[in-house]
Amino acid sequence: MNVGILGATGAVGQKFVTLLENHPWFNVTHLAASSRSAGKTYKEAANWIAAESMPESIANQIVKETVPGFDCDFVFSGLDSSVAGEAEEAFARAGYPVISNAKNYRMHPQVPLLIPEVNPSHTALIKEQSWGSDGYIVTNPNCSTVGLVCALKPLYDAFGIEAVQVVTMQALSGAGYPGVSSLDITGNVVPFIKGEEDKLVEEPLKLLGAYEAGAIEEASFPVSAQCNRVAVLDGHLECVSIKFGTRVSPDDVKEALRTYESPLAKMGLPSAPAQFIEVFEDERYPQPRRHVGLGNGMTVSVGRIRPCEILDIKCIVLSHNTVRGAAGGAILNAELLVKQGFLQSKTTENLIAAT
Amino acid sequence: MNVGILGATGAVGQKFVTLLENHPWFNVTHLAASSRSAGKTYKEAANWIAAESMPESIANQIVKETVPGFDCDFVFSGLDSSVAGEAEEAFARAGYPVISNAKNYRMHPQVPLLIPEVNPSHTALIKEQSWGSDGYIVTNPNCSTVGLVCALKPLYDAFGIEAVQVVTMQALSGAGYPGVSSLDITGNVVPFIKGEEDKLVEEPLKLLGAYEAGAIEEASFPVSAQCNRVAVLDGHLECVSIKFGTRVSPDDVKEALRTYESPLAKMGLPSAPAQFIEVFEDERYPQPRRHVGLGNGMTVSVGRIRPCEILDIKCIVLSHNTVRGAAGGAILNAELLVKQGFLQSKTTENLIAAT
Amino acid sequence: MNVGILGATGAVGQKFVTLLENHPWFNVTHLAASSRSAGKTYKEAANWIAAESMPESIANQIVKETVPGFDCDFVFSGLDSSVAGEAEEAFARAGYPVISNAKNYRMHPQVPLLIPEVNPSHTALIKEQSWGSDGYIVTNPNCSTVGLVCALKPLYDAFGIEAVQVVTMQALSGAGYPGVSSLDITGNVVPFIKGEEDKLVEEPLKLLGAYEAGAIEEASFPVSAQCNRVAVLDGHLECVSIKFGTRVSPDDVKEALRTYESPLAKMGLPSAPAQFIEVFEDERYPQPRRHVGLGNGMTVSVGRIRPCEILDIKCIVLSHNTVRGAAGGAILNAELLVKQGFLQSKTTENLIAAT
Amino acid sequence: MNVGILGATGAVGQKFVTLLENHPWFNVTHLAASSRSAGKTYKEAANWIAAESMPESIANQIVKETVPGFDCDFVFSGLDSSVAGEAEEAFARAGYPVISNAKNYRMHPQVPLLIPEVNPSHTALIKEQSWGSDGYIVTNPNCSTVGLVCALKPLYDAFGIEAVQVVTMQALSGAGYPGVSSLDITGNVVPFIKGEEDKLVEEPLKLLGAYEAGAIEEASFPVSAQCNRVAVLDGHLECVSIKFGTRVSPDDVKEALRTYESPLAKMGLPSAPAQFIEVFEDERYPQPRRHVGLGNGMTVSVGRIRPCEILDIKCIVLSHNTVRGAAGGAILNAELLVKQGFLQSKTTENLIAAT
Repeated sequence: MNVGILGATGAVGQKFVTLLENHPWFNVTHLAASSRSAGKTYKEAANWIAAESMPESIANQIVKETVPGFDCDFVFSGLDSSVAGEAEEAFARAGYPVISNAKNYRMHPQVPLLIPEVNPSHTALIKEQSWGSDGYIVTNPNCSTVGLVCALKPLYDAFGIEAVQVVTMQALSGAGYPGVSSLDITGNVVPFIKGEEDKLVEEPLKLLGAYEAGAIEEASFPVSAQCNRVAVLDGHLECVSIKFGTRVSPDDVKEALRTYESPLAKMGLPSAPAQFIEVFEDERYPQPRRHVGLGNGMTVSVGRIRPCEILDIKCIVLSHNTVRGAAGGAILNAELLVKQGFLQSKTTENLIAAT
Repeated sequence: MNVGILGATGAVGQKFVTLLENHPWFNVTHLAASSRSAGKTYKEAANWIAAESMPESIANQIVKETVPGFDCDFVFSGLDSSVAGEAEEAFARAGYPVISNAKNYRMHPQVPLLIPEVNPSHTALIKEQSWGSDGYIVTNPNCSTVGLVCALKPLYDAFGIEAVQVVTMQALSGAGYPGVSSLDITGNVVPFIKGEEDKLVEEPLKLLGAYEAGAIEEASFPVSAQCNRVAVLDGHLECVSIKFGTRVSPDDVKEALRTYESPLAKMGLPSAPAQFIEVFEDERYPQPRRHVGLGNGMTVSVGRIRPCEILDIKCIVLSHNTVRGAAGGAILNAELLVKQGFLQSKTTENLIAAT
Repeated sequence: MNVGILGATGAVGQKFVTLLENHPWFNVTHLAASSRSAGKTYKEAANWIAAESMPESIANQIVKETVPGFDCDFVFSGLDSSVAGEAEEAFARAGYPVISNAKNYRMHPQVPLLIPEVNPSHTALIKEQSWGSDGYIVTNPNCSTVGLVCALKPLYDAFGIEAVQVVTMQALSGAGYPGVSSLDITGNVVPFIKGEEDKLVEEPLKLLGAYEAGAIEEASFPVSAQCNRVAVLDGHLECVSIKFGTRVSPDDVKEALRTYESPLAKMGLPSAPAQFIEVFEDERYPQPRRHVGLGNGMTVSVGRIRPCEILDIKCIVLSHNTVRGAAGGAILNAELLVKQGFLQSKTTENLIAAT
Repeated sequence: MNVGILGATGAVGQKFVTLLENHPWFNVTHLAASSRSAGKTYKEAANWIAAESMPESIANQIVKETVPGFDCDFVFSGLDSSVAGEAEEAFARAGYPVISNAKNYRMHPQVPLLIPEVNPSHTALIKEQSWGSDGYIVTNPNCSTVGLVCALKPLYDAFGIEAVQVVTMQALSGAGYPGVSSLDITGNVVPFIKGEEDKLVEEPLKLLGAYEAGAIEEASFPVSAQCNRVAVLDGHLECVSIKFGTRVSPDDVKEALRTYESPLAKMGLPSAPAQFIEVFEDERYPQPRRHVGLGNGMTVSVGRIRPCEILDIKCIVLSHNTVRGAAGGAILNAELLVKQGFLQSKTTENLIAAT
């Protein structure tokens, strides 16, 4: 399938480019960015910041403006929230499926906020969208929400959840590029990330909600979040305390995490990790630098599962903020949508039509 | 007064040496360390790690073994816990007041665990100690406990406390030297510090307890702690959530912190900061690197005071782990003991006796 | 004397504000910045990044536009080079002495490039300037030049210099704020700083030149520079190799550095350090984080003086890039100009005139 | 072939274990370490520090003492130099080929100091060794030497070299584990590494020497080295200036580096990188964190090739200190020795003998 990337030159866009190189299903055929970049080759337009080399096949593509008119099957959006609202709507109205990492439509009642292993049935919301076209929008959660909710899902199913306290230590790459000034973070912690704590309060409830009759019945429990930036490159580490609906031991929690059956188990999605959740017994682990890459950045790591003196259980959760928490999560969303029939190759359709 | 330092060559010992240079009351006359160092000059024996230069007056003193027999008025102990138990007892039995930073006797029922602004009356416990001499032991709390309890004390007095959740991001200097390997912490967070969480559960209750009839009636509320090491040089930052015994607003908390009357206010102790607690309104502050030095490292900083969705109020607390949380705290303890009459110059006594 | 600061809200401007607090001679009465900041209080206009608190006396001053019209005795300029050229000229034409940290006029033949301990006689150039007013411009060198030339000066005088190789490891604060992205420098070295190497080739020759008959006869030797950015907050460390005009031993070099008579020795300038150059014998020193603050950031540190297998002698040099290498150096320049009679209080003049 | 690893639990030993997982020719069958570790499983004995998981096949092997008696075809040595001298000799005397990363025998006249792309013919020295057995020792150079000499080799061949100045910025992993204290290096540079500069003076001359009649005729030019430790995890970056035997332009240097024919080109060695040397045109590159992994850590990167004002050409060189500069280099050495017939499977021999 041919795909476009909106916001292709930014930090998230670059991650899309990197992760989609050699993707077995998706072929990046269109790169869109601001009018300042449009008309240049990608190589000229992007200040490439990744450690991986820029894919040869991408380097010389000409960057386009972010307006509909591409001949591709769907678009990924790595747009900044300041422009995503309008642009994504324009693409949806023009008939494109938009698989977005931006925050703008996450809490929209007809837009799925999607983690394939957690709430694959929420894609049914797509049918409720009405952009006057075949287009639609699907979003993935904020990078600090993803790891938390992946770890909570098996526990929510098994025991019910009544309250969640979370303190995050978030990586620099979560702020984009140039993002955090080195003068602010070197040898320091910045105990504030604008807007972040609100997302952690809202998004988990939609993600753990139930789809019913064209709407999401949200889960209902309080989340209290405190968000910090630390001098780590990739990987959000979170200290979590959970109150359950029933009496639960650390071993119960480990058991639930280890035996959770991922709904993707037999789907063969290329970006789905072999192991959805990795549970650590070594109390020093998981650590961002050492374990962020598990499952090519798509595995969520949980460790230090032990009783909490106030709520019931506390533990730490680690996830890769730019892979599982952004571009990688969006790509997995697209793969699920293919399997569910929401994404189809126009070429294929045309071929079929032509038959 | 003439003072000795036990464990003088270690990281805490060096901090004692630095902070006591030019102290108006205390004059370092004896330096004790392991037998490996004994007999050398301090300059030779200590691998000096501080940014400040080694005081000239100390550099050429001869290091002694850690056994009683010094002619000084009292000793500070910066000993490692592996040896502090026995050594401090030996000095107490030999008649020395021991002002200790080690953990060994902190929870001993007759030993004051002391923060002068918090529980100055606990020094009455000294009279309950019986080492067969005039000697005694007074301790200061663990470096992660100090900031938390300083911030809690005004709130405990004003509102009562029913529960405290705390997640720490602790500085490298808290682990001593060489301490944390650079290969473990560079670009990383280590989400585990051996023994640390237990101290945060126990020590606050003793510190906030009431002295009555020769014993401490401990406070009674659960503390849940999660401790992390981050790549910060000095300053433990803590994300705290508190449940109070009554309905409390963020403004109530600010008011209580700002109007707390330090019991040291008019004592003129040289190491007491002009401001015991600094409350920040800027939501980005306090930050370890920027604010750890307030009040020469003796002020405790509190910020981001806001409602908690689960308990009542959440906030962040910062304190200097090697000053307020270790050597500086022990020196302030000694200053209080002088004011209270527990520490006296033998020379003075002798002079008086001679009259 | 009343002074203004141009570029007062930027990183260099903030350093001027910090260092001038409590200055015995200079009183900051005017703060100028871009039109975006003009009209606001300094507190509102500046994103204060220093660890020190913003001086109370400054916080509520109203920021002005960067156009002449202040009633002050002279101005410091911490302007960005993109605007300094025009603005500094305007102030000089309007009759202000401009003590500048910007690079624009450093190599101008009539403008002194000044380090008071190195070339105080170069201020005679001031008389050659013709702005159609009493105004003039004096500059200090680039932050990477300063330490090097301070260390070279005693050696140049004693032995002559034929070649200098220098590799720098420069601090983050040298790039201003926000400056270097944390994503670029965390766990990394950036081996390129735009324009920096050229300054190290040119500026030392002017600084070590001789004033003669209204012009500087520049020194004449090649400098080869390689400049790197490292994850250090303050302090440029430089690995230097020097070829001398005569046979020189490491001890000769130490002797020359230690016995150099600073021309400021008896002037009583408030910002002059007690020791101009500190020579270290411990081969691990100087180190940026540990020694950058010597002499309140105005002492230059030299260590590891040893034979070079190719040129004659190699060593390391450390200086504080935002104090000695920027604002502190400019303030010391102003102090010298006061002593030399180039800067005078208008008030004093007026008083004298009125007598 | 079955291989043993001496010093298997240390930092270098762990890197051998990681790199040899899935090696097509070599199978790790024996792990040796100190008597403290002997008898334990590898999992118990090693404080595993790598980001990669410990290979399953290794985790439960029993660690042996470092004395001959293994039934394997050869051994890699990641021993510390304090014990490598004696232990490696014992294994050589017992008939084992010892492929060593330790420094002890590097400058021994009959021991090859080997970089396969640079001096493959030096293995002829093996025949000159006389340990009273079939055993022998082959070494790889110090981690700071490797990158430099790889970059110099094509230039030495093409133009001759008369002098080399090098300033290194070396990664933390070069010091082993726990190695550098975080309190020494966080926000700092340590401008001294014990013994390192001497190795950079000596080893390049042997590596670039010519094998002739049972001995190495060393190259002859002065090297001046200044070595620094920086807060980088992996990758030694070096600022180099070179004086050639003839007039050379930057383009000549690029040409020589790009057209150098690696002697391994057609050998099919599994660890040889597709590209021996990568030349960068972007003046910001190479950077340790971004480019250290090129060619799986075996490619050497060169950038910023430009004229030097004092010698002829300056440039920067980056190489992976624990892969190309240690375990990976040793493995490539072993692969070359297989191709050259110096290493043979005993099993194969036995099979052949049995036929």
